[in-house]
Amino acid sequence: MNHAIKQMEWAFKEIYKFSSKIPIRTHINIGERQNSLIMPVFLPSSQYFIVKIVNIRSDKIPSIVGVINVFDVNSGDLIAIMDGGSITQMRTGAASGLATRYLSNEDSKDLVLFGTGSQALYQIDAVLEVRDISFIGVVGSSAKKSNSFSKIIKNNYSIECSPIKSSEIPGNSIICTATTSQLPVFSDEQIPPGCHINAIGSYQPLSREIPSSTILRSKIVVDHLKMCILEAGDLIIPKEEKIWSFENIYCEIGELVLGLVPSRENKKEITLFKSVGNAVQDLAIVNYIMRKL
Amino acid sequence: MNHAIKQMEWAFKEIYKFSSKIPIRTHINIGERQNSLIMPVFLPSSQYFIVKIVNIRSDKIPSIVGVINVFDVNSGDLIAIMDGGSITQMRTGAASGLATRYLSNEDSKDLVLFGTGSQALYQIDAVLEVRDISFIGVVGSSAKKSNSFSKIIKNNYSIECSPIKSSEIPGNSIICTATTSQLPVFSDEQIPPGCHINAIGSYQPLSREIPSSTILRSKIVVDHLKMCILEAGDLIIPKEEKIWSFENIYCEIGELVLGLVPSRENKKEITLFKSVGNAVQDLAIVNYIMRKL
Repeated sequence: MNHAIKQMEWAFKEIYKFSSKIPIRTHINIGERQNSLIMPVFLPSSQYFIVKIVNIRSDKIPSIVGVINVFDVNSGDLIAIMDGGSITQMRTGAASGLATRYLSNEDSKDLVLFGTGSQALYQIDAVLEVRDISFIGVVGSSAKKSNSFSKIIKNNYSIECSPIKSSEIPGNSIICTATTSQLPVFSDEQIPPGCHINAIGSYQPLSREIPSSTILRSKIVVDHLKMCILEAGDLIIPKEEKIWSFENIYCEIGELVLGLVPSRENKKEITLFKSVGNAVQDLAIVNYIMRKL
Repeated sequence: MNHAIKQMEWAFKEIYKFSSKIPIRTHINIGERQNSLIMPVFLPSSQYFIVKIVNIRSDKIPSIVGVINVFDVNSGDLIAIMDGGSITQMRTGAASGLATRYLSNEDSKDLVLFGTGSQALYQIDAVLEVRDISFIGVVGSSAKKSNSFSKIIKNNYSIECSPIKSSEIPGNSIICTATTSQLPVFSDEQIPPGCHINAIGSYQPLSREIPSSTILRSKIVVDHLKMCILEAGDLIIPKEEKIWSFENIYCEIGELVLGLVPSRENKKEITLFKSVGNAVQDLAIVNYIMRKL
């Protein structure tokens, strides 16, 4: 995970620098339950051209399955086929890790996780990599899921972990929302000062995990502005409500990595990293794997 | 090839019926020489969802390499990976075969081929399937290529075949243009009455194989109007010259298959099938292969 977070530094710099050249991904609805994303990316700085295809459905575990086709830029030949599900989870986790390093308070001790799916595990992995966490609170869609997920975490990481309610979020927490919810998973007054939120579950314009009022009072950093304008329901909905605008976004995370703007400015502010995911992140992981082969 | 032509009947009916639901494919330029096409397609009438990725470059043989990812609609799982190059050539040939069946004069005896690449072979295969051809004329980009290609054809098909000039096209010919040329490959006065043209080489707005004046005097049938408006240089260039309009298109080939409009109306007219290619055609071949497995 440490290497993956490092790769995200490269990815988000590239996204910021080549924003206009990164194609918008295609969404295709397969029946009523499945959304397929077709994500091609080519960058002059990589010798591989990749096309990721992932199928996402909320009624299955894992919810993300798919494949990454890796082509050699020089020959045009297909040279590798990689598992799209695990790389998606790895890079999505790593992105939250990087955002947490730049945006959360350095002395944050509590991690609160919304969601108990496989993506949630990668979020934990990534946050533990960058902050010294002593308690993990889990908010699942049912008591049963929260309990069994908490037990797994406790056994795997030897860190205190238990189900909590969204009203029990400690001050100064790192919060990851990794659900398939279409409606906000907490209410704004439940977020105490000093928290950092990684909002990664929603990637369609009509669904969101974060209430508008939290968007209004947060310093918002996005993965890729162009894509968030099209896909990030967490931001699009408050914009449609005419109480917020994309001009209020603080920066892309690539600008933090490049040192173009300061990150967190005081201990009390609420920071929020909104990511819908980008194929450049997958390319970053693919580049790493190819170097190791 | 006979089965493939049959599958194109299904494909073009589907394209006509579900036109608005077929996603526009994505073009990505890889360096200066390579164009990559990302073509996803899902139709309610197929149990497979496919994503084809093909890399096209004029400096290599074969010029088209790539892969087709086949997903099961019910599970979302990747269930097959097929060669994108050969299926593209097969379905492109089959489309010309189908168009030739509907549009050329039944007593056409001469086939004229522009291009000597691997796509040209599939064009021959397909036309021989639907018409009783006794002579094949080859117009290549060099005498050497035309000669060696003609020899291969003669040996493979036991049909009289020789290089010809574009000024020597016989009346009533079936003409296939399967080149990577960016400029017209013949002049309009070289096309005698009764010819049918399959124009399949050009698939980008700035390149064409057919001169404007031939477009003006032909009955034009397209594979998919929506895509041709975006990609078919053969039609876009005369439109940009303001001497022709997309309203002059006679029909989509799916309408011929469905019997909604008559096909050729007299022995003298020039008919022209313009195809930029569509992933539904690939899906039709994939469906056939999956049934046979």
